[in-house]
Amino acid sequence: MSSDTAGLTWDLIDQARTRIQGRVHRTPVMTSRTLDSLSGARLYFKCENLQNMGAFKARGATNAVFALSDAEARNGVATHSSGNHAAALARAAKLRGIPAYIVMPNNSPKAKQASVSRYGGKIVFCEPTQQAREAGVERLIAETGATLVHPYDDLRVMAGQATTAVELLEDVPDLDVILSPVSGGGLLSGISVAAKTLKPAMSVIGVEPEGADDAYRSFRSGKIEPLVNPQTIADGLRATLGRKPFAEIRRHVDDIVTVSEEDIIASMRQIWEVLKIIVEPSGAVAYAGVFARRLPIERRNIGIVLSGGNLDLDHLPWQ
Amino acid sequence: MSSDTAGLTWDLIDQARTRIQGRVHRTPVMTSRTLDSLSGARLYFKCENLQNMGAFKARGATNAVFALSDAEARNGVATHSSGNHAAALARAAKLRGIPAYIVMPNNSPKAKQASVSRYGGKIVFCEPTQQAREAGVERLIAETGATLVHPYDDLRVMAGQATTAVELLEDVPDLDVILSPVSGGGLLSGISVAAKTLKPAMSVIGVEPEGADDAYRSFRSGKIEPLVNPQTIADGLRATLGRKPFAEIRRHVDDIVTVSEEDIIASMRQIWEVLKIIVEPSGAVAYAGVFARRLPIERRNIGIVLSGGNLDLDHLPWQ
Repeated sequence: MSSDTAGLTWDLIDQARTRIQGRVHRTPVMTSRTLDSLSGARLYFKCENLQNMGAFKARGATNAVFALSDAEARNGVATHSSGNHAAALARAAKLRGIPAYIVMPNNSPKAKQASVSRYGGKIVFCEPTQQAREAGVERLIAETGATLVHPYDDLRVMAGQATTAVELLEDVPDLDVILSPVSGGGLLSGISVAAKTLKPAMSVIGVEPEGADDAYRSFRSGKIEPLVNPQTIADGLRATLGRKPFAEIRRHVDDIVTVSEEDIIASMRQIWEVLKIIVEPSGAVAYAGVFARRLPIERRNIGIVLSGGNLDLDHLPWQ
Repeated sequence: MSSDTAGLTWDLIDQARTRIQGRVHRTPVMTSRTLDSLSGARLYFKCENLQNMGAFKARGATNAVFALSDAEARNGVATHSSGNHAAALARAAKLRGIPAYIVMPNNSPKAKQASVSRYGGKIVFCEPTQQAREAGVERLIAETGATLVHPYDDLRVMAGQATTAVELLEDVPDLDVILSPVSGGGLLSGISVAAKTLKPAMSVIGVEPEGADDAYRSFRSGKIEPLVNPQTIADGLRATLGRKPFAEIRRHVDDIVTVSEEDIIASMRQIWEVLKIIVEPSGAVAYAGVFARRLPIERRNIGIVLSGGNLDLDHLPWQ
């Protein structure tokens, strides 16, 4: 497909912005003198934990669902996900009044299942392997005619996630750097294209857990390095980098750094304590890059994407 | 003093508003379709947990400190408090560049002590009794010439807390009801005067833990009923209703209702889960009045003050 080869363009992002307006929140940007003085920089936290559904995933899923023609939309959408994308897609489909079919591993947390069901998503369980997930979605699509909305390897999804950076730069035009977590790459790739289009001189940096560092390794080797047996508390960052996001990341991202589990947990707790908002472990990873002093940021204006806030409050990582 | 007999006036509130501007946050108002549909009302959460210091107390303390003449201010300010007012007063004094003397019970949580120290407050420990606290402050004032800033029985403090309602009504002019927690009464009294001045037709309702229900009983009997051995997880609501706040509450508040410990904890958790923000138990008490269906609010516009977000993350009440 031609739009595929063309990659993520500003036009797609601009269309996404219009399309999702009023269907997802414009999230606030928070600041803290305490964290500024600890870091030596001026920090601007883009609160996607306060997004609909509690994660930036609402942006991409909503853009993908509302980009469909009426004929495509009629049969619904499908995906496989055990996380925030599943609920985001169910929510977007409900907004459009079409079915959403979600293949979930049969060991998915009850809270995640409940979240999908609350938005009317139809759950189909499968064995907890990548193969079973993909086979499950293929079968569903064959049966229903639904359109696949991949969690990140999809230009419409990437364009939706990119609107995070558009809003952040509108609110804070003086930004020097944006820090984003990276997993499948939908968010980081979208942010990088948006930021470099709007302000070519700025930097975009990905932050990744050491225990799931395929994007870090891929960025250095220049080809997608598989992620084997990821070990991180950041359950939202256990996916392998996608092909389409990687193409943008190679072109537009300045660096990818890694952070330890210890720093992710301490960063998460510091955000709870100082900003008084709930972020999940994955949501704290970009800030962990600052907290762990992995980046030269002194006296600069740093945008930090807090990507989500969904977690089980009965099991906090510092307990 | 004449201003004392006059009680809390709109002029004092209006002056407070100007005085604290730029010195404390104008806090956001959050909404949630999920909580609206659970409650059957339109809920507007005034996020004082996102206030400087993590509580509305920053408003009253800042107003009191900046209302002092230079001659009064020179010798500093003093109070006794084991909670948010102590840190708020230390912060305000630091902003003005004057000393703050804080008498704290020697069993105060380490986190609260650290918070006062971080803002440069000078802590003087005492035995954990009301008598020892008051004697400690009197001695300090005799020694230093500092001005007492009582946590709530003080018109300047009440006027500062009242600005919470002024902002909320500016942001949501269509409000029908404001719900506020009540303990010493500084917040509820301030809110009631502000709200009834700006919009006489609306209701102001106080919400109080069953295990510390002196305001509830006092409101009914018409005289201050002492609070003996309060038993509630809402540690910010264990003070006895003050004389000056009570005079305003009798005149301007429509009702006071109580909520159970169970409902306070469940309400707090629901706010964390749905709004993705941290509130302390006391901060969830006003919402508990909605959660527990203690109030006729269907289809009305309800302002809910989330009063604070300071708590020990190692010990959550549902664990």
